[in-house]
Amino acid sequence: MEILVAKRAGFCFGVKRAIDMAFALSKKEGVYTFGPLIHNPQVIEKLRERGIDVTDDIERDDIRTLLIRTHGIPFDLLKKTVAAGYDVVDATCPFVKKAQHYAKLLRKEGYQVVILGDREHPEVKGLMSYAGRNVVITDGETLSPLKKKVGIVVQTTQPIERLKRLLGVVIQQSKEIKVYNTICDSTALRLKETEELAKNVDAMIVVGGKNSANTTQLAHLCKSLNIRTCHIETADEMRKEWLREVNKVGITAGASTPEWIIENVKKRIQDMGGRSGNGT
Amino acid sequence: MEILVAKRAGFCFGVKRAIDMAFALSKKEGVYTFGPLIHNPQVIEKLRERGIDVTDDIERDDIRTLLIRTHGIPFDLLKKTVAAGYDVVDATCPFVKKAQHYAKLLRKEGYQVVILGDREHPEVKGLMSYAGRNVVITDGETLSPLKKKVGIVVQTTQPIERLKRLLGVVIQQSKEIKVYNTICDSTALRLKETEELAKNVDAMIVVGGKNSANTTQLAHLCKSLNIRTCHIETADEMRKEWLREVNKVGITAGASTPEWIIENVKKRIQDMGGRSGNGT
Repeated sequence: MEILVAKRAGFCFGVKRAIDMAFALSKKEGVYTFGPLIHNPQVIEKLRERGIDVTDDIERDDIRTLLIRTHGIPFDLLKKTVAAGYDVVDATCPFVKKAQHYAKLLRKEGYQVVILGDREHPEVKGLMSYAGRNVVITDGETLSPLKKKVGIVVQTTQPIERLKRLLGVVIQQSKEIKVYNTICDSTALRLKETEELAKNVDAMIVVGGKNSANTTQLAHLCKSLNIRTCHIETADEMRKEWLREVNKVGITAGASTPEWIIENVKKRIQDMGGRSGNGT
Repeated sequence: MEILVAKRAGFCFGVKRAIDMAFALSKKEGVYTFGPLIHNPQVIEKLRERGIDVTDDIERDDIRTLLIRTHGIPFDLLKKTVAAGYDVVDATCPFVKKAQHYAKLLRKEGYQVVILGDREHPEVKGLMSYAGRNVVITDGETLSPLKKKVGIVVQTTQPIERLKRLLGVVIQQSKEIKVYNTICDSTALRLKETEELAKNVDAMIVVGGKNSANTTQLAHLCKSLNIRTCHIETADEMRKEWLREVNKVGITAGASTPEWIIENVKKRIQDMGGRSGNGT
């Protein structure tokens, strides 16, 4: 059984940057991240071992340094953290920062802002705070009636196909549309590579946090191609029966999955009879 | 055999306005239109009978009044007509004027302007003159590589489906898109009504200039629905064999088709055994 690993599996630029910023703080006291730094429980555990804890309360007394996670935070909370007097280390992904800037700009220019994304995702909650009162959040499936002048920004990890469908719907309703395609290239390339890999194998192992939107999306994509797909967080979850009658198995991973977890999964599959292929 | 006439068959707002402006000049001397006022040979003939002639030369000596047609003209020609000293009556459709304004605005805001339309159509030639050096003209099928910041305006008589497809292509290439949906409501409604009518009859008679883009589009639409479709300019072209085994026949007409031509077609079909239905 051949094992093929997607080239772009694992950490993207924004996540790598945030992790580096976090580890640089690992000897300090009173370091907290506001919510989990990234959507990967194993990385969060590693950070905790280095004294970097997660908090939901930005006003607790023992904070000396607050690390803002890759997804960013709403503007009013950002103001509060700055006012709180402790150090703020902003690890918001620069691409998310850009999307926040565009949401604000569209609002200022008089557009009704439409955000394409998951309304429960912290990135989208952050974007909302910049988008003004008339903001509309949509997953692309349902959409309330819109005004004549609409501005669109996109959660950085959304698939482009969803944005295309949304444009087709919005253009039926609005006369002027300004779109910032804030989907990051890393997401688009990862999805594309995963699709190519999946079409070439008998089973796909998707590695990453169950709470990671972009990892879940990779799993959905593989399933939609009718490929046997298993979404796991760590090597421990691997089951030999998944690889029954499999000649080629593909591994891909979300933007918040560290290299060592992907390596462990690969090793586990080797123990189950796999041998390295040429990657994608 | 029942005859059903589309409610919105015939003159749209912009054409009606231009015709009224032209007839108001019918007693004057030296009145010319720059190119045919609208794309309907029979109407052009009626205007000629009233002394309003067509010219391609805006500098001829005998012009006293020049009428600018519904489709508008390029900016440099407009400047020349104003400098020429004769009276200029601008019958450019107000919706086309708006599209010209948006093309200019997009250029000023630093967008590469993309015009969705037929590059040979006078309206598009006019729009181009406002869109700047990097303008791209597309019929929606082919598209040269685009810049990162793209602004879109649309020939007012294009179908919305074509704009939707174009957006899907542009969003793959450009990061910022500003779209003015300059398709006029009259075009959209006429297409919608014609589609509904066509689905309800056994044959469609589409009336209007063979050189009229929006009339040709109506005929294409009917054919695409696999309905027996005949595109005629006048009642004289009607053939009885087209109505063989037809229980219901629909009539629709382009924006530049006058009421009297539609009426004549209806009468001719009545002579062939048709009786009026309830319209759409």
